[in-house]
Amino acid sequence: MAVFCNISIAQTSDEEAFFIKRIYNETLKNGQCYKWLTHLSENIGGRLAGSDEAEQAVDYTFNILKSLEVDTVWKQACTVPVWERGPKEEVKISWKEDNGMFQSDALSVSLTKSKELNALALGNTIGTGQEGIEGEIIEVYGLDTLEILGRKALENKIVFFNRPMDASQLSTFSAYGGAVDQRVYGAARAARFGAKGVLVRSMTLRKDDNPHTGVSVYEEGTPQIPSLAISTNDADLLSAILKKNTVSAFIRNYSKNLPERTSYNVIGEIKGSEFPDEIILVGGHLDSWDVGGGAHDDGSGCVHALEVIHILKKLEYKPKRTIRCVMFMNEENGLGGGKEYARVSNEKGEFHLAAIESDAGGFTPRGFACSAEDEVFRDHFIAFTNFHDFLSPYDLFLKQGGGGADINPLKSQKGLLIGFRPDSQRYFDYHHTAIDRIDAVNPRELKMGAAAITSLLYLIDHYGLGAK
Amino acid sequence: MAVFCNISIAQTSDEEAFFIKRIYNETLKNGQCYKWLTHLSENIGGRLAGSDEAEQAVDYTFNILKSLEVDTVWKQACTVPVWERGPKEEVKISWKEDNGMFQSDALSVSLTKSKELNALALGNTIGTGQEGIEGEIIEVYGLDTLEILGRKALENKIVFFNRPMDASQLSTFSAYGGAVDQRVYGAARAARFGAKGVLVRSMTLRKDDNPHTGVSVYEEGTPQIPSLAISTNDADLLSAILKKNTVSAFIRNYSKNLPERTSYNVIGEIKGSEFPDEIILVGGHLDSWDVGGGAHDDGSGCVHALEVIHILKKLEYKPKRTIRCVMFMNEENGLGGGKEYARVSNEKGEFHLAAIESDAGGFTPRGFACSAEDEVFRDHFIAFTNFHDFLSPYDLFLKQGGGGADINPLKSQKGLLIGFRPDSQRYFDYHHTAIDRIDAVNPRELKMGAAAITSLLYLIDHYGLGAK
Repeated sequence: MAVFCNISIAQTSDEEAFFIKRIYNETLKNGQCYKWLTHLSENIGGRLAGSDEAEQAVDYTFNILKSLEVDTVWKQACTVPVWERGPKEEVKISWKEDNGMFQSDALSVSLTKSKELNALALGNTIGTGQEGIEGEIIEVYGLDTLEILGRKALENKIVFFNRPMDASQLSTFSAYGGAVDQRVYGAARAARFGAKGVLVRSMTLRKDDNPHTGVSVYEEGTPQIPSLAISTNDADLLSAILKKNTVSAFIRNYSKNLPERTSYNVIGEIKGSEFPDEIILVGGHLDSWDVGGGAHDDGSGCVHALEVIHILKKLEYKPKRTIRCVMFMNEENGLGGGKEYARVSNEKGEFHLAAIESDAGGFTPRGFACSAEDEVFRDHFIAFTNFHDFLSPYDLFLKQGGGGADINPLKSQKGLLIGFRPDSQRYFDYHHTAIDRIDAVNPRELKMGAAAITSLLYLIDHYGLGAK
Repeated sequence: MAVFCNISIAQTSDEEAFFIKRIYNETLKNGQCYKWLTHLSENIGGRLAGSDEAEQAVDYTFNILKSLEVDTVWKQACTVPVWERGPKEEVKISWKEDNGMFQSDALSVSLTKSKELNALALGNTIGTGQEGIEGEIIEVYGLDTLEILGRKALENKIVFFNRPMDASQLSTFSAYGGAVDQRVYGAARAARFGAKGVLVRSMTLRKDDNPHTGVSVYEEGTPQIPSLAISTNDADLLSAILKKNTVSAFIRNYSKNLPERTSYNVIGEIKGSEFPDEIILVGGHLDSWDVGGGAHDDGSGCVHALEVIHILKKLEYKPKRTIRCVMFMNEENGLGGGKEYARVSNEKGEFHLAAIESDAGGFTPRGFACSAEDEVFRDHFIAFTNFHDFLSPYDLFLKQGGGGADINPLKSQKGLLIGFRPDSQRYFDYHHTAIDRIDAVNPRELKMGAAAITSLLYLIDHYGLGAK
């Protein structure tokens, strides 16, 4: 995580520095991103690919791009899976507790206790049907534990994955990365050993009652079993009860996978005046999980991308290179949009000099992280770090190691893939929950992000990246 | 605002870097600051100097320091002013509006409209008494406008200061600094021209219904008139109505200034093993405004300072220099604690090698800014910037231009005065309002701040600052 300030060699030019100051002024004073995000998050709401809400988001952002009077606006069809949560899921745990009144075995009395847990079915999971499932809970630390325990211990059990995210990680994304295998692969792996269902500790460092959904995947040749997330408070409680008791769970959810549908990426383009064949992409993803409003994930990224166009237009900037604003569909559960965008782009022989994705929330910007194919990375990256002197007054770092789920399929074009990096501390408080709504977003922080992205995009457009 | 990374010359030592990593691990995993802040903010609550709540905060933090088993814990008496808000203040505006039903002059009908505004009396203001005051409102852009308008326009008026904070400023503290003269000096200056009362637009960039209090000061020889803040939404509304109508305000508040009392700074000290005469101070201020819980301002600074001691103790660190945790009283309306601390320290001939104040909220740390007497500044600052390589992995900057209200009186000791600089974007959403409560503070962000401050303090203790 070194800051590459020592190899910063560019002399900041007054004119370019002043233009960046104008970008910040305009965004902070007249930015529209918070207004747009309010509509996406509150009026449209959660918008999983394939849902009516996702189509509303397509139309809404298409119309904004139209109103910004870019050269071309279009929808790009892509195929998306369709998963529906169905009616509210239920998870109820039950256990027998000695009432403590009688000390002799003969007279001891057990009381059956039970508790409803705060739960959300994980994306792509099957449902239990009306009858639900019931089984004894076995707590495990992670996927590897399954191998150790084996079929004898796991068969017909409900496996409870409870390894917390590591609080000592500085980036909450690192902490997430170290724990999310339980959510994604837990059901598939537990099913190998005959488990009948899976509960997963929610992917957050916060101790609260909000369950966090997110994608899970099945594997070929293994039975599909239901998997649900429970809140961290409930995970801690369940773990404590399990230390002393045998606990069973009743799980009922009505989730189902339906046939694929056609949905759309939304794209707007300003043609470059000097190097129209060098595309600079800025984007986020339109879809979100069905619960909440997808305000941070990734409404923020969409309105960041729209704001970039809005601000460049307001400042009457004429780009040298082709600027393309892309709002991808289906990042959350399939990447249908990102893959299709890259497929079409490759087919046309396009070249993305750089692609910037904002998919880490609408928090105060900390900087940008980038990656590219090794053979071209060095030149691009040196050019990139040359922007340091322009961006350090705004406390923005430029680091290695970025990209984004939707833009990563463009890797073979050998441009620079850049991830916008806002402050990560609060992101997983809201991620994939019912509380990822507009009131979780601060308007200034959101606008600061848009200004940072616009500034970097301007620098790439103005100076290029050294080598093609 | 340049980042001083180019003069970074220190080689990071593995041992020191590892100790900083341990500080972060311990704080993020086992930090107590959020728990302490919850008590300060929610169980004790708003704690203006001289109030019972302020005394409870003195006792609470004194006992925490005791429990942390530092070498010495003491209370340092200081004199503080006592201001009481009294029962809920009222601001009601009234204006006549044409009802629009009749077009001829002879038949036109005016309707009297009125509206209650969200208001808070400003600190130190006098009250209107039971009868209240009433007068025509005149809107002004700032203090200078008063001179232009003169007595004829202002006499017997209620002056409405409505210059907003400048949204284009990157740091909200800069935006605050550019507008707060209206709140601090508005009443005194308007009174010079015979005004009978003052309303001030709340000091925030957010558009909402929360009025923000804060200190105001009178001047000798000018009548004292009541001054109150109104919310930004109400300020915008009032300004819009004033564009078309003559508007009067009725103001009633019961605030009063009472005789001074004795209160306390709370101090805990770990004696240095090698250079006990070089003091490194870490602190915040115990008092807050009476509304809300003083969670960010400055409960966060107090629990940061306590956490520094807690973490150093947990890691069994034996400081070379004397570490002093100081929670100052009366920063908000008089600096009684900060001044008394410096007076006693100077009298004893003490030397503070460095003083770090946290008084900018419990948000994600961005870095530190420092200032010192010119003659010693250069050496100290170069030593300070040598810490860059240790702190840059944590994305912390080291800049010029810091300090803190409570530690600035130590300037004559010619040590380094250091302001902790968390991200500022949300600070003025909560500052001096009823919503500056624990739910406005993110536990991770708060702990990150404590870890950053502990790390810097450790580096100063371990390496010194080059020159005395």
